[in-house]
Amino acid sequence: MTEAVQTEAVHTERVDFRVSPDRYKHWRLSTDGPVATLTMDVDEQGGLVPGYELKMNSYDLGVDIELYDAVQRLRFEHPEVRTVVITSGKPKIFCAGANIRMLAASPHGWKVNFCKFTNETRNGIEDATAHSGQTYLAAVNGTASGGGYELALACEHIMLVDDRSSAVSLPELPLLGVLPGTGGLTRVSDKRHVRRDLADYFSTKSEGVGGKKAVQWRLVDEAVPRPRWDETVAERGAELASRSRRPENATGVELTPLAKAADDVIRYDHVEARLDRDAGRVDISVKGPRNDPPASMAEAARHGAGFWPLAVTRELDDLILDLRTNETELGTWVFRTEGDPALVLAYDELLLGGKDDWFANEVLHYLKRTLRRLDVTSRSLIAAIEPGSCFAGSLLELALAADRSFQLAGVFEDKDPTADSNTGEPATITLGEANLGPLTMSNGLTRLQTRFWGDEAGYEAAAKSKAEALEAEDAAELGLVTFAPDDIDWDEEIRIATEERSSFSPDALTGLEANYRFAGPETMETKIFGRLTAWQNWIFNRPNASGPDGALRRFGTGQRAVFDRKRV
Amino acid sequence: MTEAVQTEAVHTERVDFRVSPDRYKHWRLSTDGPVATLTMDVDEQGGLVPGYELKMNSYDLGVDIELYDAVQRLRFEHPEVRTVVITSGKPKIFCAGANIRMLAASPHGWKVNFCKFTNETRNGIEDATAHSGQTYLAAVNGTASGGGYELALACEHIMLVDDRSSAVSLPELPLLGVLPGTGGLTRVSDKRHVRRDLADYFSTKSEGVGGKKAVQWRLVDEAVPRPRWDETVAERGAELASRSRRPENATGVELTPLAKAADDVIRYDHVEARLDRDAGRVDISVKGPRNDPPASMAEAARHGAGFWPLAVTRELDDLILDLRTNETELGTWVFRTEGDPALVLAYDELLLGGKDDWFANEVLHYLKRTLRRLDVTSRSLIAAIEPGSCFAGSLLELALAADRSFQLAGVFEDKDPTADSNTGEPATITLGEANLGPLTMSNGLTRLQTRFWGDEAGYEAAAKSKAEALEAEDAAELGLVTFAPDDIDWDEEIRIATEERSSFSPDALTGLEANYRFAGPETMETKIFGRLTAWQNWIFNRPNASGPDGALRRFGTGQRAVFDRKRV
Repeated sequence: MTEAVQTEAVHTERVDFRVSPDRYKHWRLSTDGPVATLTMDVDEQGGLVPGYELKMNSYDLGVDIELYDAVQRLRFEHPEVRTVVITSGKPKIFCAGANIRMLAASPHGWKVNFCKFTNETRNGIEDATAHSGQTYLAAVNGTASGGGYELALACEHIMLVDDRSSAVSLPELPLLGVLPGTGGLTRVSDKRHVRRDLADYFSTKSEGVGGKKAVQWRLVDEAVPRPRWDETVAERGAELASRSRRPENATGVELTPLAKAADDVIRYDHVEARLDRDAGRVDISVKGPRNDPPASMAEAARHGAGFWPLAVTRELDDLILDLRTNETELGTWVFRTEGDPALVLAYDELLLGGKDDWFANEVLHYLKRTLRRLDVTSRSLIAAIEPGSCFAGSLLELALAADRSFQLAGVFEDKDPTADSNTGEPATITLGEANLGPLTMSNGLTRLQTRFWGDEAGYEAAAKSKAEALEAEDAAELGLVTFAPDDIDWDEEIRIATEERSSFSPDALTGLEANYRFAGPETMETKIFGRLTAWQNWIFNRPNASGPDGALRRFGTGQRAVFDRKRV
Repeated sequence: MTEAVQTEAVHTERVDFRVSPDRYKHWRLSTDGPVATLTMDVDEQGGLVPGYELKMNSYDLGVDIELYDAVQRLRFEHPEVRTVVITSGKPKIFCAGANIRMLAASPHGWKVNFCKFTNETRNGIEDATAHSGQTYLAAVNGTASGGGYELALACEHIMLVDDRSSAVSLPELPLLGVLPGTGGLTRVSDKRHVRRDLADYFSTKSEGVGGKKAVQWRLVDEAVPRPRWDETVAERGAELASRSRRPENATGVELTPLAKAADDVIRYDHVEARLDRDAGRVDISVKGPRNDPPASMAEAARHGAGFWPLAVTRELDDLILDLRTNETELGTWVFRTEGDPALVLAYDELLLGGKDDWFANEVLHYLKRTLRRLDVTSRSLIAAIEPGSCFAGSLLELALAADRSFQLAGVFEDKDPTADSNTGEPATITLGEANLGPLTMSNGLTRLQTRFWGDEAGYEAAAKSKAEALEAEDAAELGLVTFAPDDIDWDEEIRIATEERSSFSPDALTGLEANYRFAGPETMETKIFGRLTAWQNWIFNRPNASGPDGALRRFGTGQRAVFDRKRV
């Protein structure tokens, strides 16, 4: 077999999402006062897995991990940055999109997970623009194809160099027989409002559209001749920066290296995950704060990355990414918490009281994004609410994000009375202000609103319980937990729920969860993770794309794809 | 091989969607004043294709074709009917859903197309309830599983017999490894507002939920003991009927048999489709009215099924279904019209002026539903607007539904000057009142609103052209058509567009079109055809469901499915 790329790339090494600018292979991050520049200059030989070269600024997961890190650090470490310019360090090419040989050689699940992470980072770019006063500017200084154009689409303003050769394009359909998989179709129609027939034409024309036509069709915001390029980029950067409400003279919070030990237990400072490979399950435990919160957000910023809400969010974020990518056969995640609910609520209060504080704002939005990552994670989520737990306020979101929750009615009768976790008090849950507004899902509603979608009375009754520590029966009565078994049934019920879950078709569970988790309104984000992603998954899975004669596998071989012409 | 069901069912005969109550095998339609009863009593041996028995009121496409026919006839032939009770003629079972052996034996495309049609009929049931004063009542007099419960979910009110054994259930996930494919998940969460964790539990419990718990969880509206069943059904039927605005003493319009000749041309009175199998394309021509409209809707009703708007809609409806089911390799449909635009607009005016008339109302909603069928059809749609055409008002919707439209600038220089279609005048399009409101897409917007989604100025400019006959350049300038080639380029441009289309991956085109056709807001209907359907297509396509060891294929064999446990 001459085409080595057509064999499946083997992902044997555990992917690590922890990286820092000094170790970037593919990006350069520089700042100049309020304007930062993120320069994409992909190392062709720096692929995450052997077997492909990252030519023409094409990317794989490794490139995207660095981008995600940069976007995060800009928000926390650079309060002074108000505009982020994304541009290319290569001549004539901005970015060629996801590497095709990598895609062709990757198993289905890898492709889907890769697209999901890429989508999340792009949503994060829009989130920074909307909520952080860091506006992203795409300085498209060469051709942007496929995922390259989709990266630009995530930016607030798109400048395209007008040089008769540079264009933006979505060549996935004509060249690869798949869709642009990271939000392209949705953003073209729902964000940039390109007319549907022009969008259709554009997406079937592999060479794309450049110059004035790209502006007329709304594909980009301006086309700038090369001689005026640098000054115009600088001008736009300054203009966008001038609109920002980022703070003056604030000191950034360094995202210090995340300590982590991994084996059959993945252990961070506040989060621990026990992997049970036989049962196909992960037991995740999140520890609440050990001490009172700092007196002010200014003091909190001095705690830096050790500030509990930031620390626990970073750990959860890393864990979700780690498990999603590296532990695909562990299909059920069981969440527990441990600690004092009052302390969680006190931290929430500090954060919510400090909404005008840039650091509080960043922490809250980061927690919001991390919980959204959980919502779109294709794993069954179960919350086990036991005595000694602290499912209150922000941590209660973990239970509200779960597909099912169990709260122990009463106490464990036979638990070691000297054990730390045995306070002798029954488990409670407590709604707080954090559950009533700031931590929206991608459908724009809170998890509580989504839970009671169409049931106004149910919502009101639940919301009225704010600040009350609810024992199991009351929580179940209010519809805040699913089941409230007692000591006698507890172990059995949890065991049955998780065993049953792992006996079901993992694909059908993914589809079920993707539908039930998002009742009510749709947004661009839910469309991207719902409609668009589901179609792409289907297309990725079809022989017309991924079969031996499919377009994705045949690309670059000189042979045309062979299609089953039946329309489905 | 002992399991003959596991081979693919061969659909060699052309499926005919034309049926009438005297030929129903599976349903009985009876009326008693304002209350009609549709009794499902499926003939086990009456499957559309050999190889399976339709046990326990399970259904295949043939059963659904009859249901669709009944729902249509009730609206047109029975103005007196205000409540439609759907119930079962079998003891203990309401409906077991789609026949599993049929599903297991059907190729992927057949399953998907079958689900689409079933969904459309269920949406039609909701449409009758919302817009026709015919409210559907599900009298669930035995267990309703899967598609059986989904049929009930399409009804406005669900009564479940409370007899300790009857339940409603969605056992697709636990038993078959697929999703409920005809709107179940969406209606459970977004219509009936079942809480997401209860919905999750319900959808993993194959035996379902009955009695009071089904009411508490909002899965049904009432649970009625068997002794009080008949009287309660009659009571509810009368109550629902009393809310209706259906007319008093109107005479129905009989849907007489649709004349049709089929070969390489499918020919009706007003619609003709030429099948070009080599090019993978169908050229569809729709004829406008030949005469002035009747003076009033009362007179129109006397014309009966021959009334042009009804006749042409029935023909289009049948053609769409025929081509979708029987001609899956013809991936591009090119629409042309022929006739006098003024007459089309005159018919529109009669219909829209008669909005309070029940018959005008039925015709308009039927046209709306038929155009929606086109929107969700997985074929590339192209409009070719030539001299002699009548793309005006309601017929202009065909061009607005198209993925791309071409309008000839000027005239065909070398056309036979004596030909009927050569008026010597350039082609025009004309917006009418029909384009500005009544014919909404399933996203709740008109095609014009969807086209200019996010471009208010563009919408206003286009809408202002109402009643103006626009030649190609003006229409293109206003964004109402995509391209305006002249005589010299015309044939070549259309040829390239269709040839190019048929060279692309049919799957990727389906995904692209499903995304670009629906900008803007989402409704239950778009969620069902978008998010839900796409996930189901993916799941249907995965080995975990449809592979030799998959759940769908192993069901009933006594062997458990073997799953690839990796979560995607």
